[in-house]
Amino acid sequence: MTIQYDGTKYSGWQKVSNSKSPTIQDKMEETFSKYFGEKVTIHSSGRTDKGVHALGQVINCQVSKPQDLGMIKNQLNAYLPEDISIIQVDHVDDRFHARLNAKEKTYRYHLWIGDNKPVFNRKYVTLYEGPKLNVGLMGRAMEDLLGTHDFAGFSSDKTKKNTVRTIKRGQIVETEDELIFEFTGDGFLYNMVRIMVGTLIEIGKDELDIGIISQIFQDKKRDMAGKTVYPNGLFLVSVAY
Amino acid sequence: MTIQYDGTKYSGWQKVSNSKSPTIQDKMEETFSKYFGEKVTIHSSGRTDKGVHALGQVINCQVSKPQDLGMIKNQLNAYLPEDISIIQVDHVDDRFHARLNAKEKTYRYHLWIGDNKPVFNRKYVTLYEGPKLNVGLMGRAMEDLLGTHDFAGFSSDKTKKNTVRTIKRGQIVETEDELIFEFTGDGFLYNMVRIMVGTLIEIGKDELDIGIISQIFQDKKRDMAGKTVYPNGLFLVSVAY
Repeated sequence: MTIQYDGTKYSGWQKVSNSKSPTIQDKMEETFSKYFGEKVTIHSSGRTDKGVHALGQVINCQVSKPQDLGMIKNQLNAYLPEDISIIQVDHVDDRFHARLNAKEKTYRYHLWIGDNKPVFNRKYVTLYEGPKLNVGLMGRAMEDLLGTHDFAGFSSDKTKKNTVRTIKRGQIVETEDELIFEFTGDGFLYNMVRIMVGTLIEIGKDELDIGIISQIFQDKKRDMAGKTVYPNGLFLVSVAY
Repeated sequence: MTIQYDGTKYSGWQKVSNSKSPTIQDKMEETFSKYFGEKVTIHSSGRTDKGVHALGQVINCQVSKPQDLGMIKNQLNAYLPEDISIIQVDHVDDRFHARLNAKEKTYRYHLWIGDNKPVFNRKYVTLYEGPKLNVGLMGRAMEDLLGTHDFAGFSSDKTKKNTVRTIKRGQIVETEDELIFEFTGDGFLYNMVRIMVGTLIEIGKDELDIGIISQIFQDKKRDMAGKTVYPNGLFLVSVAY
């Protein structure tokens, strides 16, 4: 299934800390188990952090009886809360696993740089406050992030053994009110997108030198990179298999 | 001032019933009075109902001391809640009144007809459930609403003496997921846009005949028109002076 969610009220896809809010996985497993009349375990393409949204998260689950896909889409959507929506349902091979088979993921980060205070998309952008950003310089720094590197310094998780990832495409789009950062890669470490965006912002503010990116790849030290930006501007856009 | 607001949590611009939620006017007058250090009364171009949003509501108020407009815009925005935003501030003549001087208003209504359950704009659309709508027929019915007519039958307020209004422009735009109804007129009666949209929908469902519109103008009976649709799809788009 491909699903969308507004992550504002959730502790992320899966609990990682002692947060009191429910997780998206909890909500969905509860609804699915009730609907299918059996305990259903849902696998996603990966965790999204507390407050992060999804335009195209992919999940899979197994139920014992054959199902009418059109019917379950509409009925499950009616039972799910208004901030979670199933947009596509397909039958898959028994061996399919949403996380293990994922080949590529795309994330997008919305930074609000407009003069006006945003009202209608306020939950889906992060407000930028500070001096005017050098977007040209940030674009050049984005180029340095592309390719295969050890991203250990761009992650908050120190337990991961393999921290080599490949970013296949990356761009910064400037609209009237937003800077939109887009990354497509074979996988992303914990907080990696938010730390990369934070680093690009500090380069754009001239608080970090553009050379810092290759330095972080070399030294693998988290404290050399920029701050982890707020989760509310981040969207998991799509997962390719 | 031109302001935007998400009406979801409010009892409308001004209280009309015994609702417990605050009004947008209350919130703004409270913030303005505290900021300017004097009791401030705010006039708007007109009330918006409970749950209705504004992309370009216009308000005016008078304060005793001269003000730096750029400064008050930013500072007031910081004090106002996140669902109310000032987007423009101008000095006006002492005799200016946001309601009395308004020449033209534009409203837009978003009806969600897409197959997917909307997540990110769920507070700003009204879901349509029912048979496929005959949009061509609805467009022809919209034509019948244009011009100068007695709209008494399209209002929930029976106390209004002058119920003649002119709708200067009206259109229905069909996007992939929405039908967007847009009306520009010299003024609108209480619930008038929502009753017009409800009537157009019932014509599109073949539950009302297209001839009903001229009948309602003639007979002026509210119960001949369609249902008052939900407020959450409605936006006050702009006010012209």
